[in-house]
Amino acid sequence: MKKIIKTPVFGINSKSYMYGAALLELAEYADHLAEEYDMSIMFSAPYADLGKIAAETKYIILNAQGMDPIHTGRGMGHVLPESLAEAGADGVFLNHAERPMTLSQLIKAVSRAKELQMHTIVLADSVQEARMTALLKPTMIICEQTELIGTGKTADVKYMQETKAAIKEIHPGIIVLQGAGNRTAEDVYNAIKNGSEGSGASSGIFLAKNPKEKIRELFEGALKAREEFGSRVYGEEEI
Amino acid sequence: MKKIIKTPVFGINSKSYMYGAALLELAEYADHLAEEYDMSIMFSAPYADLGKIAAETKYIILNAQGMDPIHTGRGMGHVLPESLAEAGADGVFLNHAERPMTLSQLIKAVSRAKELQMHTIVLADSVQEARMTALLKPTMIICEQTELIGTGKTADVKYMQETKAAIKEIHPGIIVLQGAGNRTAEDVYNAIKNGSEGSGASSGIFLAKNPKEKIRELFEGALKAREEFGSRVYGEEEI
Amino acid sequence: MKKIIKTPVFGINSKSYMYGAALLELAEYADHLAEEYDMSIMFSAPYADLGKIAAETKYIILNAQGMDPIHTGRGMGHVLPESLAEAGADGVFLNHAERPMTLSQLIKAVSRAKELQMHTIVLADSVQEARMTALLKPTMIICEQTELIGTGKTADVKYMQETKAAIKEIHPGIIVLQGAGNRTAEDVYNAIKNGSEGSGASSGIFLAKNPKEKIRELFEGALKAREEFGSRVYGEEEI
Amino acid sequence: MKKIIKTPVFGINSKSYMYGAALLELAEYADHLAEEYDMSIMFSAPYADLGKIAAETKYIILNAQGMDPIHTGRGMGHVLPESLAEAGADGVFLNHAERPMTLSQLIKAVSRAKELQMHTIVLADSVQEARMTALLKPTMIICEQTELIGTGKTADVKYMQETKAAIKEIHPGIIVLQGAGNRTAEDVYNAIKNGSEGSGASSGIFLAKNPKEKIRELFEGALKAREEFGSRVYGEEEI
Repeated sequence: MKKIIKTPVFGINSKSYMYGAALLELAEYADHLAEEYDMSIMFSAPYADLGKIAAETKYIILNAQGMDPIHTGRGMGHVLPESLAEAGADGVFLNHAERPMTLSQLIKAVSRAKELQMHTIVLADSVQEARMTALLKPTMIICEQTELIGTGKTADVKYMQETKAAIKEIHPGIIVLQGAGNRTAEDVYNAIKNGSEGSGASSGIFLAKNPKEKIRELFEGALKAREEFGSRVYGEEEI
Repeated sequence: MKKIIKTPVFGINSKSYMYGAALLELAEYADHLAEEYDMSIMFSAPYADLGKIAAETKYIILNAQGMDPIHTGRGMGHVLPESLAEAGADGVFLNHAERPMTLSQLIKAVSRAKELQMHTIVLADSVQEARMTALLKPTMIICEQTELIGTGKTADVKYMQETKAAIKEIHPGIIVLQGAGNRTAEDVYNAIKNGSEGSGASSGIFLAKNPKEKIRELFEGALKAREEFGSRVYGEEEI
Repeated sequence: MKKIIKTPVFGINSKSYMYGAALLELAEYADHLAEEYDMSIMFSAPYADLGKIAAETKYIILNAQGMDPIHTGRGMGHVLPESLAEAGADGVFLNHAERPMTLSQLIKAVSRAKELQMHTIVLADSVQEARMTALLKPTMIICEQTELIGTGKTADVKYMQETKAAIKEIHPGIIVLQGAGNRTAEDVYNAIKNGSEGSGASSGIFLAKNPKEKIRELFEGALKAREEFGSRVYGEEEI
Repeated sequence: MKKIIKTPVFGINSKSYMYGAALLELAEYADHLAEEYDMSIMFSAPYADLGKIAAETKYIILNAQGMDPIHTGRGMGHVLPESLAEAGADGVFLNHAERPMTLSQLIKAVSRAKELQMHTIVLADSVQEARMTALLKPTMIICEQTELIGTGKTADVKYMQETKAAIKEIHPGIIVLQGAGNRTAEDVYNAIKNGSEGSGASSGIFLAKNPKEKIRELFEGALKAREEFGSRVYGEEEI
């Protein structure tokens, strides 16, 4: 069963910044926040860390950072969808700028994830890409302007509105996130205020002196935005 | 500390054929064989399965099926070396025909694995490739003729001798395996008889009706060969 | 100025089967057919052959077989769009199964081709891919079931109708071709009869004992179909 | 027949900076310099420009910027070796940092080039890579520190000496070039003075206000170095 998602979501994307015991500790902290504040926290981890984090957490939505659209069989060193699902991943990121997919692979990967009841979080870096990926009806589309990744610069409002409108016109049930570059609670708050159905950070958290404190700080931005702009539940109907 | 390797080794390469609980069961069985017969068993698993298998086994040499030569940092969905080592991988396969690497990446990946005290098992599919990869002084080179993978056809003796001689001339401390295509204990026995310092299977095991029985059957071939042709210890000196 | 295209088109796709003087001779023959029968013939050639073929022909629509979505600058060994256009290519194939593109690259490549007034011929191997690529409004979409390439088996009618309907619903101005696997004039005729707006061959022509005769033979199928099912002009309005 | 190469060579590497008529003009100018000063000038061009440049020049060594190690057949959009050779390419760059190759592909590509009597210019970005590629006995190895490309910073002397020694130890008949980052005649002169068997530029020429004048300027550095440090002929014996 897929976990239900409530917006605004809060995202913690570890990429390859952290792993092992240190990452597990942050995941447990995020799990605590997710439970206490009843907020959907999207937490990504390296493939090799998924099993342990899944075993030790309950409330976060745990995501793999990529996947190959294969079936069991050959595929030495490929990322087998079933191996992620059985390890406890609730979802998977697809087509991130640092792990781009061919169009055919992306289509197959979304399909494989749905077979396995995994959430799909697809990245799109232009209005056209947002519209094209919306046709696949993933759980969530993150409209990230590739050139802003890791810069601390946030997306411009016009881009955010255009991509969101383009996606919602195709399937209103797709959650639309925008951003990249959040460094402060204010950034997170503003992203949601400007229409993003959630926010979070990657380098903003993992390059901070104290990642746990930074999570807490950014999380406050999401809480404040939820209080002001309300919440919405996705996923009770079939995604 | 790297695990010491005794030849002939026995290899169980799961590729993407199996994962999760079923694979864990085979890993535990292999661990039992490795202990009871004091044989080095090279066991590969999908990234997401490494942690659990490492926690439940002790004698097998557990290998990741690939790795990206990155350092901690960006690298969404990449396979971070540190994440494998901390999950408990003893080694890593590099440059397999189903996950080929650029020359630059291969060089960096061998270097990264050595930093992390991981064994390196590099694939080579021609005499020239064997010679070139030998310059990197990996733990082991598997000379696999790509066109034989999954066919049940075994490598020809002349090819085996040439590749082995080419590698040993450069570094006698590199373990040289040959094969691909083993289906029977006889195949495994013959590979070692013909000079391979170990043998094993992938599809031969995982497409068998009963993979556990097939492991036992092929393992007998390795035992018989060891009895006749003797054993050698690698890795007490620095590899 | 883009060349106007009349359907049904006839396609001669050389892939890497032929090059140089032999291919030039076929291009000249195709040019003669295109002129004499006033049919749009889509002719593809290796990058290095484009200049000479463009110089010696006038009526065929000459296409590059791929392109990288770069601008002038770095990009050693990449396929610069401007270099194709100046060499005389009228169009470019994008996202062929043998040269798949990431979604981002495909979007940028269609855009770059339009800037340079080149036709875009995009491949799609599923109904979903057809629909997604239609959003890019290329000149032509070829719905090719990847598994049929080079087999001599032709696409099934239901698949052809579904993909065509999906594309035309989005932009009726996109020319829709189907097929792969044509070996006889009958195959070509049937493809058009079943709704494809053209047809042609690759291995069917270039692996034939006499490629020129085979072109003539298949071309008859296209002529017969045009006579029965009529013709349509594309491209007088802005594509 | 391969063209004989005399060192020091002078290299003009257009990458994707220039194409068509403008590039042809520079090629003709380089051809004039090559004839008048009897110097081997290595000139690279986009695939689509090779045919025309080959037809209009005689003395430069014209190189493709990459190649796929395929044989005639399928391979839509791939770079067929035979298509380059018949278009008039004298050689080919392989494994450039901007078009890296897997180890297997590199081995096959060097082999395919030799079958077609084409020179092979292989890039290597570390001492280990230099040594490994030397085993393939290409015509030339360019030891380029990837991080310096396009920066205007030149390689350090120790790196140059180590890579050269490593290569010459394996095959003294391989021409060894170093550099990247040349901007002035002095840079070119110094590279050769420090042991490089030639020098040249890419961005240094093509981003200059007047590329033709810049070629002339840098060429003077090569002439001066030849006068002082002498010349050597390669390629009369079998490479």
